[in-house]
Amino acid sequence: MSELKHLGNETNYDFNYRPDVLESFDNKHPENDYWVKFNCPEFTSLCPITGQPDFATIYLSYIPDEKLVESKSLKLYLFSFRNHGAFHEDCINIIMKDLIALMNPKYIEVWGKFLPRGGLSIDPFSNYGKPGTKYEEMAWFRMQNHDLNPEKIDNR
Amino acid sequence: MSELKHLGNETNYDFNYRPDVLESFDNKHPENDYWVKFNCPEFTSLCPITGQPDFATIYLSYIPDEKLVESKSLKLYLFSFRNHGAFHEDCINIIMKDLIALMNPKYIEVWGKFLPRGGLSIDPFSNYGKPGTKYEEMAWFRMQNHDLNPEKIDNR
Amino acid sequence: MSELKHLGNETNYDFNYRPDVLESFDNKHPENDYWVKFNCPEFTSLCPITGQPDFATIYLSYIPDEKLVESKSLKLYLFSFRNHGAFHEDCINIIMKDLIALMNPKYIEVWGKFLPRGGLSIDPFSNYGKPGTKYEEMAWFRMQNHDLNPEKIDNR
Amino acid sequence: MSELKHLGNETNYDFNYRPDVLESFDNKHPENDYWVKFNCPEFTSLCPITGQPDFATIYLSYIPDEKLVESKSLKLYLFSFRNHGAFHEDCINIIMKDLIALMNPKYIEVWGKFLPRGGLSIDPFSNYGKPGTKYEEMAWFRMQNHDLNPEKIDNR
Amino acid sequence: MSELKHLGNETNYDFNYRPDVLESFDNKHPENDYWVKFNCPEFTSLCPITGQPDFATIYLSYIPDEKLVESKSLKLYLFSFRNHGAFHEDCINIIMKDLIALMNPKYIEVWGKFLPRGGLSIDPFSNYGKPGTKYEEMAWFRMQNHDLNPEKIDNR
Amino acid sequence: MSELKHLGNETNYDFNYRPDVLESFDNKHPENDYWVKFNCPEFTSLCPITGQPDFATIYLSYIPDEKLVESKSLKLYLFSFRNHGAFHEDCINIIMKDLIALMNPKYIEVWGKFLPRGGLSIDPFSNYGKPGTKYEEMAWFRMQNHDLNPEKIDNR
Amino acid sequence: MSELKHLGNETNYDFNYRPDVLESFDNKHPENDYWVKFNCPEFTSLCPITGQPDFATIYLSYIPDEKLVESKSLKLYLFSFRNHGAFHEDCINIIMKDLIALMNPKYIEVWGKFLPRGGLSIDPFSNYGKPGTKYEEMAWFRMQNHDLNPEKIDNR
Amino acid sequence: MSELKHLGNETNYDFNYRPDVLESFDNKHPENDYWVKFNCPEFTSLCPITGQPDFATIYLSYIPDEKLVESKSLKLYLFSFRNHGAFHEDCINIIMKDLIALMNPKYIEVWGKFLPRGGLSIDPFSNYGKPGTKYEEMAWFRMQNHDLNPEKIDNR
Amino acid sequence: MSELKHLGNETNYDFNYRPDVLESFDNKHPENDYWVKFNCPEFTSLCPITGQPDFATIYLSYIPDEKLVESKSLKLYLFSFRNHGAFHEDCINIIMKDLIALMNPKYIEVWGKFLPRGGLSIDPFSNYGKPGTKYEEMAWFRMQNHDLNPEKIDNR
Amino acid sequence: MSELKHLGNETNYDFNYRPDVLESFDNKHPENDYWVKFNCPEFTSLCPITGQPDFATIYLSYIPDEKLVESKSLKLYLFSFRNHGAFHEDCINIIMKDLIALMNPKYIEVWGKFLPRGGLSIDPFSNYGKPGTKYEEMAWFRMQNHDLNPEKIDNR
Ligand SMILES: [Ca+2]
Ligand SMILES: [Ca+2]
Ligand SMILES: [Ca+2]
Ligand SMILES: [Ca+2]
Ligand SMILES: [Ca+2]
Ligand SMILES: [Ca+2]
Ligand SMILES: [Ca+2]
Ligand SMILES: [Ca+2]
Ligand SMILES: [Ca+2]
Ligand SMILES: [Ca+2]
Ligand SMILES: [Ca+2]
Ligand SMILES: [Ca+2]
Ligand SMILES: [Ca+2]
Ligand SMILES: [Ca+2]
Ligand SMILES: [Ca+2]
Ligand SMILES: [Ca+2]
Repeated sequence: MSELKHLGNETNYDFNYRPDVLESFDNKHPENDYWVKFNCPEFTSLCPITGQPDFATIYLSYIPDEKLVESKSLKLYLFSFRNHGAFHEDCINIIMKDLIALMNPKYIEVWGKFLPRGGLSIDPFSNYGKPGTKYEEMAWFRMQNHDLNPEKIDNR
Repeated sequence: MSELKHLGNETNYDFNYRPDVLESFDNKHPENDYWVKFNCPEFTSLCPITGQPDFATIYLSYIPDEKLVESKSLKLYLFSFRNHGAFHEDCINIIMKDLIALMNPKYIEVWGKFLPRGGLSIDPFSNYGKPGTKYEEMAWFRMQNHDLNPEKIDNR
Repeated sequence: MSELKHLGNETNYDFNYRPDVLESFDNKHPENDYWVKFNCPEFTSLCPITGQPDFATIYLSYIPDEKLVESKSLKLYLFSFRNHGAFHEDCINIIMKDLIALMNPKYIEVWGKFLPRGGLSIDPFSNYGKPGTKYEEMAWFRMQNHDLNPEKIDNR
Repeated sequence: MSELKHLGNETNYDFNYRPDVLESFDNKHPENDYWVKFNCPEFTSLCPITGQPDFATIYLSYIPDEKLVESKSLKLYLFSFRNHGAFHEDCINIIMKDLIALMNPKYIEVWGKFLPRGGLSIDPFSNYGKPGTKYEEMAWFRMQNHDLNPEKIDNR
Repeated sequence: MSELKHLGNETNYDFNYRPDVLESFDNKHPENDYWVKFNCPEFTSLCPITGQPDFATIYLSYIPDEKLVESKSLKLYLFSFRNHGAFHEDCINIIMKDLIALMNPKYIEVWGKFLPRGGLSIDPFSNYGKPGTKYEEMAWFRMQNHDLNPEKIDNR
Repeated sequence: MSELKHLGNETNYDFNYRPDVLESFDNKHPENDYWVKFNCPEFTSLCPITGQPDFATIYLSYIPDEKLVESKSLKLYLFSFRNHGAFHEDCINIIMKDLIALMNPKYIEVWGKFLPRGGLSIDPFSNYGKPGTKYEEMAWFRMQNHDLNPEKIDNR
Repeated sequence: MSELKHLGNETNYDFNYRPDVLESFDNKHPENDYWVKFNCPEFTSLCPITGQPDFATIYLSYIPDEKLVESKSLKLYLFSFRNHGAFHEDCINIIMKDLIALMNPKYIEVWGKFLPRGGLSIDPFSNYGKPGTKYEEMAWFRMQNHDLNPEKIDNR
Repeated sequence: MSELKHLGNETNYDFNYRPDVLESFDNKHPENDYWVKFNCPEFTSLCPITGQPDFATIYLSYIPDEKLVESKSLKLYLFSFRNHGAFHEDCINIIMKDLIALMNPKYIEVWGKFLPRGGLSIDPFSNYGKPGTKYEEMAWFRMQNHDLNPEKIDNR
Repeated sequence: MSELKHLGNETNYDFNYRPDVLESFDNKHPENDYWVKFNCPEFTSLCPITGQPDFATIYLSYIPDEKLVESKSLKLYLFSFRNHGAFHEDCINIIMKDLIALMNPKYIEVWGKFLPRGGLSIDPFSNYGKPGTKYEEMAWFRMQNHDLNPEKIDNR
Repeated sequence: MSELKHLGNETNYDFNYRPDVLESFDNKHPENDYWVKFNCPEFTSLCPITGQPDFATIYLSYIPDEKLVESKSLKLYLFSFRNHGAFHEDCINIIMKDLIALMNPKYIEVWGKFLPRGGLSIDPFSNYGKPGTKYEEMAWFRMQNHDLNPEKIDNR
């Protein structure tokens, strides 16, 4: 693991979109399907139109193939949206695509739950399964079953 | 996005049913299936018989095709039911149909959870999948799986 | 809607089983499958053996065909069990059958969650799909998937 | 305890106001101040104007002097409001006064939390301390400190 | 109670500020201090600057002197803010003052919990005790002890 | 129902395993599939090795065939484990088998949620469908779908 | 601590009232006022009239003087009520008095929250402060402030 | 209110500490003591040592004298900590002092609840009452009574 | 059960990884599919890079074949990670593999929910079905259905 | 702050009791009374008799005088109990005394909430106010008001 740059070392924070900070390491159990899930309640970005801060909890889950994302680099990557302007739906798709580019996972999904603006809140969800594999079917399966038991929202 | 009229501009509120305030913009990820969900705890309309105000939380989810609904216009649209008389079941169906007319989505569903009147509360749910596509099957799938874990209601 | 007798008019309460108070009105969206759900936390009846009052929350959901049940008449109907003696399981089946007789719905289900007696509580659930249709299959599907995530009960 | 009529015996239910069913027994610890609290989530009565059923949870607490109320007789007493017409505020005061007449307690308080009618719910609270004793001061103290941390109510 | 105009009768809704709809009736227990509390989760008014709808739950508690507010008239009064423009803090003070004018209570308090705008929510609280009585001291006591255990707010 | 021995009559409690106290009565709706569920938060037995008391909530659900279990006899049966020594897993299997012997149901499942010992808690779940019927397939279906949304446990 | 008989040793369980199993050990911080609290959700006893099992959570708190109760002996003591018949109010007073006899604490309080019987639940609370000390005043202070924010009870 | 710069107008966001954006307006009820509370779940600042983002919910309550803080200016002020480095304890004291300078309130308190770092979370609380008035005594009173019922924290 | 070494006997704790402490015993119901689930909120290990302690709740469920894991030995095994360095994902896979080696179960799954580090928390989930059996298909089924209703995480 | 050794630097973990790792820094607001609170859900120590691990959440609050405890050093200090044997009550008193020695605060309190052993959990609470000051009176005040609203505990 000597190639990991962030974990256990001093940290520099950059608050402009930095997909290059993402790092991966080898999956020691590639023969095995298993889930890795990150809960990220500290996501914040800016509205590209008004410049107003937006806040969200990001739930990010994937089934690794040969690579895993290193958690401290993921944290830095998510922090790099802090002063970056992007719509809610774009944030979720961008995060998913950057992680596909990094790890080439069997399956991945990203769910953002944003705080309300003007009395409405928006929760985008995107997913992906490796084309031509059973994971592609799984992506459809999970798209179809998504959020069948929605959480109660009352803005309080 | 220069054609958007509401976001970032001054707002006029009209409290009579105004489907024309709805605005859409282009989906930047049309190759992708993904969910967009709106949580709307501030819906209120009038009973068409008694004139009494009704209150609901609306949960609105869809898979876009080429268009997305702009969130501020959706807020104005929902606010326009404020002095409009319509039954609970009609509100939900009307909202769904207006959004189909606006966006022609792959799939859409609308769930209203109304506050009780006379000790009973009513929660209508309607959905739609584009006819002749797998989204139509999905609509039936989600109709069949709807609300299998109902929330506990005790009117407090 | 001139034929509706209860909504918006003065009310007389009868606390003995009165299936005849139920009223229906026309479904304006018969081409559409959609759910209507009633949450009824004020149900009370009597134990037919001991005469002791029983209390329950009733969750009632259906997919209408050509008729909908009018909500105020449903309230009066449920109130009419107040001084009526019937076992928990019977209440649920009776309510379901009376509503089938009234509306001939595509699908219906009734779930009662009773308060405990002697440290035990009983939650009967019954459902029905129109015979020979896909709603009959749906009834079996929902029977099979019923209550897979039971609520935590501690009698407090 | 041979004089207790209800506990362990067959029960007859009367659903019209019956303060005479209340029974007391001797306090074995009269030298001691201690609380006895009853939680009663199954209270139901009728609106004296409209005849409509009302539902409440009653919280009843007292510091006994020489007598305690027997719990099964209390249950029968509360059930006897079932077909009795009384306003919310009256129910609470009547219950408190009947229990003072029965037990002559050092202190007593009764809190009713009623289900909403027309979108509003009412929670009356009454208390009493034996005049000329420190329990009278306690009644004022608890009146002054009542409900400083109100529960969240959203009618759902 | 023959003078009550709203309870049990047909209702007309007026959505402009109407303090005159409030009605009172006689307190049958004036010798007694007791609390009456209303929980009102369906309050909505307009922002006087932007015209945007605001939503709140109102918690209203008082110790009656010779009069009580009739609950249906209170509902109509609260509904009359629907199309009325007023700041959050003003709403709470106006409601309190109108009820003092109506009932001349020993003590009264009004707490509004508004849904957020721009990520902030505002919860004004006002109270009053009859000048020159122990209820005036009680007002200061409850002001001093107000909200010592604040509810957790996360805008979801 | 004249043959029922326990309901409405005086009760004797035996705290050693007594499967013979179980009683059944006729199902009045045998043409119908419906669920009956018992929530039993007062289960306690003894560890067969250490003699230490164990505590659990038992969730018991079945689809009746021609018989239903009478609830008071079920309570007595569950109470009879009070001084009986049996492992957690055995309790659940024994209860299921005794009820199969009594009622010969179409389908039955029993879930025990035990309080922790040594920082660990154990939750066994067993089910059964009548061999050679669709209920046998249902048993496998529900086995496969069991506990996909586990409750959060923190031992407090 | 060589005199402690239970902790770390083999255990024999006796399910009949055994105050003699209680053991104490020396308080190493007698110069200091501090609280020790036990949460005991596994209490069960028998009703002395009907023989029916009762279940409760016991909350027990004290400020030690020279002795502390050893926790395993307390567990055995509480288990010894398993087959013992006593009323709810008596259980609480007996437990408090046995612990006063054992430890002679500066202050002690015992709160029992029992599961419902017949739709009612009973929560007795008793306390004690060493006579003639400030702890006696504290007992009255805590008696007066007891349960000002009662938990919500709905018997489910 | 013509002097208010932010409300209803276009907004510029500055993410460096800007106490000058705060604006006040006149209290229309200066004869009256009442509370105004802001719930601010979207506070974020930077650690002055490591540069890492910190997140908090700020609860801010005051009793106005002649001025109130305008809510949109407060929002902009809080947003201005976004790229500012300050310790948790300093943030709370700075916010309180800036608001005292702006409004000269009778009483004010600020409570920050920060998300954990390294498994620990920090919740500073500061308050102030106008010197030489009863509000100064109130500050000590509320300091002494602060957080007597702490929320359960488990870092999930 | 004479061969069990831990249950009911004195215990020695070893806080370095000790898979050899695991013990199994015979399944008395091998003809039956049933679930056994362990909830383990007291898991702690060390980060292999930084040496920092990590904390998790482990949820462990399996369908036994001929062997069951003895619960006290499982506790000792989990305690043996206390001073052992391993990544989150490895802990979960190691635990699963050790239990497969011990019991050769039909099916097993292990879910770890770790406390956050740096604002992110990680929840790995691994499962296994006996190759060439329906349990292998079940593993894929449960992999596909995993965590469709994610718990709300806010790091408080 | 150049003298702080831990914050922002590489960390060595020592899992045996190390009061010397605690560090303080200057209070910049000594003229001001304010609270600093730490929530510490990751505390674990060993039972001094059995060697078994114990787990707790520690709530630690103080009003600083001239010094504050640095949070990373506090974390290391708490981690150093990991392999240290001490009773629950002792842990709480030791932590409080070490922090008094470090900071000489005006007031401090420490509350430990331990996970259950043998069905019982123990929650010790200790506090301290500088002798001869109003903070000493405050210590008694908070001792007297401690835990008047106990959390519900059910060991799940
Ligand atoms: Ca909410
Ligand atoms: Ca919330
Ligand atoms: Ca419960
Ligand atoms: Ca409950
Ligand atoms: Ca006493
Ligand atoms: Ca609610
Ligand atoms: Ca509710
Ligand atoms: Ca927890
Ligand atoms: Ca409830
Ligand atoms: Ca005032
Ligand atoms: Ca939250
Ligand atoms: Ca949380
Ligand atoms: Ca938490
Ligand atoms: Ca201060
Ligand atoms: Ca619990
Ligand atoms: Ca728990």
